[in-house]
Amino acid sequence: MTVKAKIRVAVVGGSGYVGSELLRLLLLHNRVEVAHVVGHSAANRRIDEVLPSMIGQIDRVFETWDPDVVAKDVDAAFCALPHGTSGSVVRALRERGVVTFDLSADFRLRDKDQISRWYGTPDAPEFIGKAVYGLVELNREDIKSSDLVAVPGCYATASILSVAPLLHANLIDVKSIIVDAKSGASGAGKVPSEATHFCEVTGGIRAYKTAGKHRHTPEIEQALSDVAGESIRITLSPHLVPMSRGILATAYASPKDDGFTAQACVNAATKLFSDSPFVKVLREGQDPDTAWVRGTNYAHLSYAFDKHASRIVGQCTIDNLVKGAAGQAVQCMNVRFLFDEKEGLAATALAP
Amino acid sequence: MTVKAKIRVAVVGGSGYVGSELLRLLLLHNRVEVAHVVGHSAANRRIDEVLPSMIGQIDRVFETWDPDVVAKDVDAAFCALPHGTSGSVVRALRERGVVTFDLSADFRLRDKDQISRWYGTPDAPEFIGKAVYGLVELNREDIKSSDLVAVPGCYATASILSVAPLLHANLIDVKSIIVDAKSGASGAGKVPSEATHFCEVTGGIRAYKTAGKHRHTPEIEQALSDVAGESIRITLSPHLVPMSRGILATAYASPKDDGFTAQACVNAATKLFSDSPFVKVLREGQDPDTAWVRGTNYAHLSYAFDKHASRIVGQCTIDNLVKGAAGQAVQCMNVRFLFDEKEGLAATALAP
Amino acid sequence: MTVKAKIRVAVVGGSGYVGSELLRLLLLHNRVEVAHVVGHSAANRRIDEVLPSMIGQIDRVFETWDPDVVAKDVDAAFCALPHGTSGSVVRALRERGVVTFDLSADFRLRDKDQISRWYGTPDAPEFIGKAVYGLVELNREDIKSSDLVAVPGCYATASILSVAPLLHANLIDVKSIIVDAKSGASGAGKVPSEATHFCEVTGGIRAYKTAGKHRHTPEIEQALSDVAGESIRITLSPHLVPMSRGILATAYASPKDDGFTAQACVNAATKLFSDSPFVKVLREGQDPDTAWVRGTNYAHLSYAFDKHASRIVGQCTIDNLVKGAAGQAVQCMNVRFLFDEKEGLAATALAP
Amino acid sequence: MTVKAKIRVAVVGGSGYVGSELLRLLLLHNRVEVAHVVGHSAANRRIDEVLPSMIGQIDRVFETWDPDVVAKDVDAAFCALPHGTSGSVVRALRERGVVTFDLSADFRLRDKDQISRWYGTPDAPEFIGKAVYGLVELNREDIKSSDLVAVPGCYATASILSVAPLLHANLIDVKSIIVDAKSGASGAGKVPSEATHFCEVTGGIRAYKTAGKHRHTPEIEQALSDVAGESIRITLSPHLVPMSRGILATAYASPKDDGFTAQACVNAATKLFSDSPFVKVLREGQDPDTAWVRGTNYAHLSYAFDKHASRIVGQCTIDNLVKGAAGQAVQCMNVRFLFDEKEGLAATALAP
Repeated sequence: MTVKAKIRVAVVGGSGYVGSELLRLLLLHNRVEVAHVVGHSAANRRIDEVLPSMIGQIDRVFETWDPDVVAKDVDAAFCALPHGTSGSVVRALRERGVVTFDLSADFRLRDKDQISRWYGTPDAPEFIGKAVYGLVELNREDIKSSDLVAVPGCYATASILSVAPLLHANLIDVKSIIVDAKSGASGAGKVPSEATHFCEVTGGIRAYKTAGKHRHTPEIEQALSDVAGESIRITLSPHLVPMSRGILATAYASPKDDGFTAQACVNAATKLFSDSPFVKVLREGQDPDTAWVRGTNYAHLSYAFDKHASRIVGQCTIDNLVKGAAGQAVQCMNVRFLFDEKEGLAATALAP
Repeated sequence: MTVKAKIRVAVVGGSGYVGSELLRLLLLHNRVEVAHVVGHSAANRRIDEVLPSMIGQIDRVFETWDPDVVAKDVDAAFCALPHGTSGSVVRALRERGVVTFDLSADFRLRDKDQISRWYGTPDAPEFIGKAVYGLVELNREDIKSSDLVAVPGCYATASILSVAPLLHANLIDVKSIIVDAKSGASGAGKVPSEATHFCEVTGGIRAYKTAGKHRHTPEIEQALSDVAGESIRITLSPHLVPMSRGILATAYASPKDDGFTAQACVNAATKLFSDSPFVKVLREGQDPDTAWVRGTNYAHLSYAFDKHASRIVGQCTIDNLVKGAAGQAVQCMNVRFLFDEKEGLAATALAP
Repeated sequence: MTVKAKIRVAVVGGSGYVGSELLRLLLLHNRVEVAHVVGHSAANRRIDEVLPSMIGQIDRVFETWDPDVVAKDVDAAFCALPHGTSGSVVRALRERGVVTFDLSADFRLRDKDQISRWYGTPDAPEFIGKAVYGLVELNREDIKSSDLVAVPGCYATASILSVAPLLHANLIDVKSIIVDAKSGASGAGKVPSEATHFCEVTGGIRAYKTAGKHRHTPEIEQALSDVAGESIRITLSPHLVPMSRGILATAYASPKDDGFTAQACVNAATKLFSDSPFVKVLREGQDPDTAWVRGTNYAHLSYAFDKHASRIVGQCTIDNLVKGAAGQAVQCMNVRFLFDEKEGLAATALAP
Repeated sequence: MTVKAKIRVAVVGGSGYVGSELLRLLLLHNRVEVAHVVGHSAANRRIDEVLPSMIGQIDRVFETWDPDVVAKDVDAAFCALPHGTSGSVVRALRERGVVTFDLSADFRLRDKDQISRWYGTPDAPEFIGKAVYGLVELNREDIKSSDLVAVPGCYATASILSVAPLLHANLIDVKSIIVDAKSGASGAGKVPSEATHFCEVTGGIRAYKTAGKHRHTPEIEQALSDVAGESIRITLSPHLVPMSRGILATAYASPKDDGFTAQACVNAATKLFSDSPFVKVLREGQDPDTAWVRGTNYAHLSYAFDKHASRIVGQCTIDNLVKGAAGQAVQCMNVRFLFDEKEGLAATALAP
């Protein structure tokens, strides 16, 4: 494949948190020209009026969705639409030969029963099982040759990255996996609800959809089962933390064998992700902070072993809007179009 | 024992977060007269200058510590001193016949080796093993006849309350207990450090002292072992959340038997705490929020069962400065002096 | 008038932030029995399900609004309904002889033109000009004999309290008054909107409705004109601060005469509010923090004089939901029913 | 002057908030090589250990301050040292011919009496009055030929930018200027203190050093007097807001003439800053939010006219660590070395 100097892309669903994050990243990407920005609910309004963080950065309006306009002159498109609504857009894009990075959950699962159970009847069933799951760290080669990438969810990214090395190196009892995950409020999206009212979020922490009720669970299990080569079931506990961005996934598991050490986990992760520039494995016992990756595409991994109770504690921090969504999609695009994987994703975390 | 209409109390260590919380509660307690407020580092300064939340509420200065002054005319004293520094104060109080509620960790553990390991050489070794552990919900009767109560730590309170019913009803595999605990920053105390700088706490979440390194672990294990009648080991993961107050302890365990239901946990907790006015067991599957107990002495318990992965998820929320410290101490005092257990602790949560 | 030992009250509009704050205060008020809690949008749902901070505190459901039920057996009612919707409820309550404390803006203004301009056609025009403005500190005697009290708004309370002493003592140029006011997000109410989404509020500060566009302006001017005996115009700048509760009103004015001192302001405020237990005048130059009054009915006043630029800086902090709404209404009730003005309002601030 | 393709720079004082922000910006600057990073208190420790947001971004340790090492091979240096401690470092750098951008207050004021009054005896008095004040928007040409630039303070930047256009266009009564400024906690620096403890900052707002006590006042007055051509005195009220980053300066002034309009201010600002890419003048009456400039070098200006009370309300938002410190220093460097003024400063705001 010829590597293009620059590609033209469209963002469909640009007015939500993921969409605006895509714009933030793509506008500074040297190999990309943002050709179209579609925002249905904000059509014809200036982008920097709807998203004032864009003042001085972009000088145009949100477009309506017209596939013949949007798809005709772009190489790639990012769909950041609500779950269950991507189908017809993805179909129209693919019919017109546009490489598509879909950030919804619509094409992540391969099992039709699971899809029906968690998301209802799919809108574009012909694509089920056809998308590559866009976790570059596990599927880099497949992404290079895919024209439809299903970009992972935020909880899924953090959970999979923390647990995959342990399964890959066959270190843990596969029945013992628990992920206690803590997320900032942007993960709930921009549409206002009582649950995301400032006064309901600030000053408190709470779990939600615990004990098997969160629909990222099958996505995590699918990816981990692929790694383990056997069916994996996990317990996932999502939490809402009073912060805008960030996910901390704390993974618990029991060691498979005696003589276990945390260093074995560190080594397993270092090895599995040796070619992955965004994964940073911390030294044994260093606890990461979501603030250290704010605004970046990094994932920080950390492992410790509680010898006293014989339990592994793995941690992964990401920025849910970057490595958990928009940054991961850009990373997939970089891989797919044979750009440097870090292109446009080199920023240092915004701290404090 | 005769029930006094009103008792006279002293607060030793009144200028920190726990001390000021004690004042907040005691000043409105109808059966208490606050006779002395000792604040070593703030001695002779007006209390409402050091603690401006007290403006209009108290009109005096912090006293220096002089046992002959402080102890001579009080029935009870609360010690809210840093770990490792309570010994001589408690000795002086007890020598003068004052019923003492100590909020440090100094007298909570009964095992001398554990004390040495986690806290160093004790200051007043003669009291080791002599204090009653002041978790009213488990030790109500013992507290009634005790003159030295070791008030539990905040992580310990939330962890024990969530797990004790499961052990008491013999529902779980005792080797499977994990507590993933999330705390507000006031738990770290008032002394400034980089770790509690606003900019280092806001906008991020992080774990600390994971995998067996937090010194509340033995306290929790001691109490749970008492309940279980066998030695219990747990994994405890403390987290710092960007909020001032509140702890959410999320407990994980595997069911002992097939046919397990979450309702069995709800029933076990409801039964164990049937006489405990501050414990509220939520309906199955309702996830609590620390905001719901802010400023109160309540503990909210919640249980769910992840059937898919066969795992129990228990949750307990408390206000770390109230049920996790000052409120619990006042509750112990109420029990010890045969007052209504809720006296002075009836406030509704401050929400939002 | 005979002082009743206990009165029966109704809360109409109990599911919003002001309504739930009224419940928080009234449930612990020794002279009050909460006879009815009306919550239109939450009718027939358990109060502690809609407001989980009420778990363990109240065991009943929200009622629908039926004046023949609600009004028939209560002495007083609090209406915490949205602006423009109080009219018919207040009429029904007054027709049945219920002393009414209305927390909306509907009856605060006396000038019909101003009402039309800022709030539209009034629902119950017969009450315009008939309500007493419920700022106890200025209108204590009138409130004692009133059966309809219009409880002031939150910005208004803080603004009036800071400026009134300066006008009362004739210290300032009446054309020079500016109030730069900063409020927590609960002032915007509980109904979710993009403006109150956690992610839009946290981590930033912004003004809104500046330069004469906020409808609390005429209410402030009406009260200050009453104090000054001449028509007062002010500039009001409201701001949204990333916190739940609290208002800080910073008032600027130019001194009328040479030889001005901040102590003159301190003295004027101390004198004007000498009988007002909730107003605390700080020492000259002490800057207050909204956290010092969180959860309380206090107003902290502070004055400084910038000699270099010849400008007075006055500050007032309140909790917008307490002294700015529910607490002020309870204070009015205490005054109206000849209870101790502080009854049920004695709590210390929740700090931190 | 020849424009270099790339210059070598040193950062002295790299471990504080301003220093780390300089690193964040300089590491991605295409025309800069970061040759030395001096961090006295963290010398010989890995930069990414002290500043974990740098993990994966920089692979070296903090150096000690040795002018013969640091100054010998760099074109420029940034000093981010505490006020009062820059003198000897700046002297050593200048003696070795290094173009110096000093971010302390030490060289901003020209008047020796003012310096003595606000900052004490200067360390390097020979440079007093020799530095150019690094507000590019007002002093672009002077900066091009300066070898010592005193980078403005954060409050000063926001205050000057909002008021300067009004003075430049002769629109306001020069005696009427008030700036009510609200800042995030990072402005107080990284050294922990009770005032910046998370629990003391979150959930409240407070002013400090009001009524002529803040030492940025003379710096603002010096710059505004230069613009006005006459001596200007202002009232400055700094506030601490519970957020990490951002300043909102709200400026009040009375119009000089009748027939005033807000559009006149908008026009004046648009004209004065027509060549300034980082200043964005919002449309009349649009209230800015500090979140819109988070992480960027932008300043958003807004003007409204309160006709009712005849008062101008000007607003300026900046990120205090970027346009208020590190970004402004980089902007000065760009101008001084004839790079594109926006080089390395093109990032979109991190929102939410």
